[in-house]
Amino acid sequence: MGKTAAIIGGGVIGGGWAARFLLMGWDVRVFDPDPDAQRKIGEVLENARRSLPGLSDVDLPQEGTLSFHDVMSEAVDGVAWIQESVPERLELKRKVYQTLQEHCPVDAIIGSSTSGFKPSELQGCATRPEQIVVTHPFNPVYLLPLIELVPTDQNPPEMVAKASDILTSIGMYPLHVRAEIDAHIADRFLEAVWREALWLIKDGIATTEEIDNAIRYGFGLRWAQMGLFETYRIAGGEAGMRHFIEQFGPCLSWPWTKLMDVPELTEDLIDKIAGQSDDQSGHMSIRELERARDNNLVTILRGLKAQDFGAGALLNAQDVRLGQPAAMPADVSMPLETVRRAIPLDWTDYNGHMNEARYLQAFGDATDRMMDIVGCDADYIANGGSYFTAETHIRHLDEVHAGARIHIDTQILLGVGKKMHLFHRMYADDRLLATGEHMLIHVDLATRRASDPKPQIAVKLSQIADAHAKLPVPEGAGKAVGVK
Amino acid sequence: MGKTAAIIGGGVIGGGWAARFLLMGWDVRVFDPDPDAQRKIGEVLENARRSLPGLSDVDLPQEGTLSFHDVMSEAVDGVAWIQESVPERLELKRKVYQTLQEHCPVDAIIGSSTSGFKPSELQGCATRPEQIVVTHPFNPVYLLPLIELVPTDQNPPEMVAKASDILTSIGMYPLHVRAEIDAHIADRFLEAVWREALWLIKDGIATTEEIDNAIRYGFGLRWAQMGLFETYRIAGGEAGMRHFIEQFGPCLSWPWTKLMDVPELTEDLIDKIAGQSDDQSGHMSIRELERARDNNLVTILRGLKAQDFGAGALLNAQDVRLGQPAAMPADVSMPLETVRRAIPLDWTDYNGHMNEARYLQAFGDATDRMMDIVGCDADYIANGGSYFTAETHIRHLDEVHAGARIHIDTQILLGVGKKMHLFHRMYADDRLLATGEHMLIHVDLATRRASDPKPQIAVKLSQIADAHAKLPVPEGAGKAVGVK
Repeated sequence: MGKTAAIIGGGVIGGGWAARFLLMGWDVRVFDPDPDAQRKIGEVLENARRSLPGLSDVDLPQEGTLSFHDVMSEAVDGVAWIQESVPERLELKRKVYQTLQEHCPVDAIIGSSTSGFKPSELQGCATRPEQIVVTHPFNPVYLLPLIELVPTDQNPPEMVAKASDILTSIGMYPLHVRAEIDAHIADRFLEAVWREALWLIKDGIATTEEIDNAIRYGFGLRWAQMGLFETYRIAGGEAGMRHFIEQFGPCLSWPWTKLMDVPELTEDLIDKIAGQSDDQSGHMSIRELERARDNNLVTILRGLKAQDFGAGALLNAQDVRLGQPAAMPADVSMPLETVRRAIPLDWTDYNGHMNEARYLQAFGDATDRMMDIVGCDADYIANGGSYFTAETHIRHLDEVHAGARIHIDTQILLGVGKKMHLFHRMYADDRLLATGEHMLIHVDLATRRASDPKPQIAVKLSQIADAHAKLPVPEGAGKAVGVK
Repeated sequence: MGKTAAIIGGGVIGGGWAARFLLMGWDVRVFDPDPDAQRKIGEVLENARRSLPGLSDVDLPQEGTLSFHDVMSEAVDGVAWIQESVPERLELKRKVYQTLQEHCPVDAIIGSSTSGFKPSELQGCATRPEQIVVTHPFNPVYLLPLIELVPTDQNPPEMVAKASDILTSIGMYPLHVRAEIDAHIADRFLEAVWREALWLIKDGIATTEEIDNAIRYGFGLRWAQMGLFETYRIAGGEAGMRHFIEQFGPCLSWPWTKLMDVPELTEDLIDKIAGQSDDQSGHMSIRELERARDNNLVTILRGLKAQDFGAGALLNAQDVRLGQPAAMPADVSMPLETVRRAIPLDWTDYNGHMNEARYLQAFGDATDRMMDIVGCDADYIANGGSYFTAETHIRHLDEVHAGARIHIDTQILLGVGKKMHLFHRMYADDRLLATGEHMLIHVDLATRRASDPKPQIAVKLSQIADAHAKLPVPEGAGKAVGVK
C-alpha cells in the first residue's frame, strides 16, 4: 500500500507502535535522540514478530521497511501517520508539535500516546491544532487492541473518522472518547486501583504478590472477557441490572468509602445505567450470558494451564493433587488405561461436538502417558531423549460433546529398537468414539535425529509389547484411509 | 472420602459453593428458606457440570450427593464445613451463627461468603467465635479459584490451616488476608473502579459498554494473568520497579486525584514496593517476564477468538478485513492453496515446536477452506448439510516453530457421492513439514447420518476432482501407519 508512519520517541510504547505498523505492512521511520533507540526498538520488534502474526488465521501483509532518522524533518516528510510517544511533559510535547508541523504533510494525523494530558492541552500552542489528537495505547501495544481516541472540537469529524479507520486497519480498537477528561477512561480505573494498592501496601495489609493474586485469580479473569457491567448484569441474575445496582448501591456509603467523593445513586443514575446495560447486553438472556462467560473463562483458564501460569498453574497443581498415576501397572496383559477425563468446553466447536484436532490432542496425552509408563518421563526428556510422533491414523466412529467423560485404552503393537507403535481406543462408557494408531520414533533431542532409547526404556517397552502381542490385532489397525 | 458440607443460603453464591463441593466428591446439604432454592441451585449446578470437570486433565472424584433440608439443625449435623451465604445483614448473619452453633460439630469450619463484613464483626455475639472465619469467593464460584480467607486472633492457627487445606482440596486458592479490613482486598479494588465508573456514566463521559470495552480490550487482558505489579514491573523495563514507581509517582498529585486521599510516596514506601516486587518476580528477567506475558496474552486472545468474544471477536473481524479468499479459483488444475498463516505461540509445546494436535488443526482449517471452495459454506451448513471427517492419516516429516509462516496445498483424490477424499501438504517455504490425508463424508446434520450433498456441491467437487485426477498420486497417499 506504500503507507508510511513516523514514530517520534521510541522506547517500549513507541517501539510497540512501530511493530504494529511494520507488521501490518507500513513503512516506519523512527526519530529518537536516545543512542539506544535502535536496540530498544529491535527488542520490542523481536517480541512482536514472535507473537503478533500468529494471532491471525490468515496471511499478514509483507512486513514494511524500518528506518532510523537523526532529524525530525526527515522522519515526517510525506508520512500519513505520526505517533508521538515522548516523555509526559507538556512543554516538551508542545515543542515537538511545533517542529513536526513545520515539516509534515498538513493531512497527516498526529496521534499522541499521552496517558495524562487532554487533547486540548496538546493542541494549545500548535500551528494546526486540528491535526493533533490523543491516541492512547496500552502496553504491549503490539498485542492489546485498545486505543483511546480522544479528539476535541478542533478536530474535523473527517479527520477523526480517518484516524479511526487507520487504527482499525492495523488491528486496533479505537474507543472514541466523546468528552475529554484528565486520564481519559481506562487510566482513571488504573489510577483508582493503584491508589488502593498503595494504601494496602503502606498499611501492611497485603504484599505486591498478594495483590496480584487477588486480581488474577479472581476478577481479572472476568475483566479479560466481559468487563465490569456485563459481569454485574449476570450477577444481578433474572432480577436484572436495576436490581443489582440497587442492591450494590448501599455499599457506596459503607465505611471504606469514607474518604471518597461518590455520586449519589439517584433514580436517574440507576435508570441511565440499567438502560445502557440493556442496550449493551439485552440481546442475550442471563442464561446465554452465563454460558458465554463460562465458555470464555474455561478457555482462558485452560489456555493459562497450557502455559502453566497464573490461575492455570493452580489448575496443574490441582491435577497433581487429584492423583498421580502409578509409574507402571503390575498387570500389563491387557491394553493399559492412559487417559480418563471430561471433555472441556474449549474442545468443542460451533456444532457442540469435539473438534477433530482435539481427538489427536487426547491421543497425544495418551501417548505421553504411555511414554511415562515405559520410563520416558520428564527427567528422561530433560536428559536429552524423547519420542516424536512420525505418523498418525485416526478413525472417527462416533460424536462426543463437552462434559462427557472419556477414557482411552492403549495397546502396544510394536516396541522394538527406535520404534514404538501404539493403538489407542477412545471410549465414552463402552461407546467406541475413535481409534488412533501412531508410530513414534525415539530421538536424540540434541541432534533431532532417530536414536535408540536407553536400555531401561527398551526393557519396559518390550515387556509390555510382548504381553500385548498375545492380544488380537485391533480392528482398524494397519489400514490406509478409505480402505475397509 | 465421606465428607459433607452444609450450604446455608442458596442463590448464585451458595449454589456455586454447592457445585464446587459436589463435583469434588463431597456430599452437600442445602438449607435455604427460598421456595425456589432447589431450582436456582439446579441451574448453577447445570452450568458447573458443563464447565468445571473439563478444567482437569485427570479424572475427578465421583460426584457427591445433594440434599435439601427444611431445618438448619438437620443440614449441619456432623458436617465438616458450613458455608454461610445469607444476605449481607449483620444481625441476620449473627442470628444464623447462633442457630448453627447449637447444632453443628464444634470442629466444623463456618465460612462466611461476606464481601463487606470483617470476621471480628461476624464473631461478635457467637457462642464459639473461634469457629467462624471469612471465606469470600468470586462469582462464578465453580470456576474462579480465589477465596479471601480472613481470620482473626480468635481463630487458632490449626483451624486456619485446616480451612486452607480444605479450600485447596476443592481446587480453590485461599488468599490468607493477614489483617482484617473493610471489604478485604479484592473488593476494595472493585469498589474503587465502581466509583470511577459511576462518575463516568453520571457525567456522560462513557456508557456501560464503552467502559466494559475500555477494560476488556486493554488492561483486563493483562490482569487475567499477571495482575497489577508484575505488569508494571515489566513496564519499568531494565531500569526496574523502583524506576517505574518513581516515574509513575508524580501522577498521584495530578488533577484527577484531587478528591482522593493518597499515601505520600516516601522513600520507605518505594523501598517496600520495590523489595516486595523483587521477592515476587525477581527470579525472572524482564525479558523472560515479557515472553511469559506475551505467551499468556496470545493464548488468551486466541482462546477468545475461538469463542468469537471480546478481543477475540475483534481479531476475527480483522481477519475478514485482511482478505476474504475468492469462492472458487478460476484455475483448478493444480493443488489449491487452502491455508497461509504464521504459527501462533499457543500451538507450540515445551519443546518450542508445533504440537502434533495443531498439525491436525491446520489441516482441519485447510479442509474447512476446501469445503468452502466447493460451496459447503456457512449458509449451506446452516441449512443442514456438512462434511464430517471420518478418517485421517498424518505423516510428520519436519519440525516447525512459533512465528514460522506455513502454507497448505490441497489435492482432491476423490470427490464422488458422499465421499470427499483430500490430500494436504504443509510447507514452510518449500520445506515439506507434513502431509494429511482425510476421508470426509457428507452428512445430514439433522439425522447425523451420511447423505448425498446438494447438486451444486457435487458439480464443483467433481470439477476439481476431475482436474486433480490428472495429477500424480501424491507420495504417501493410500499408506497405512508404518508402511513405506
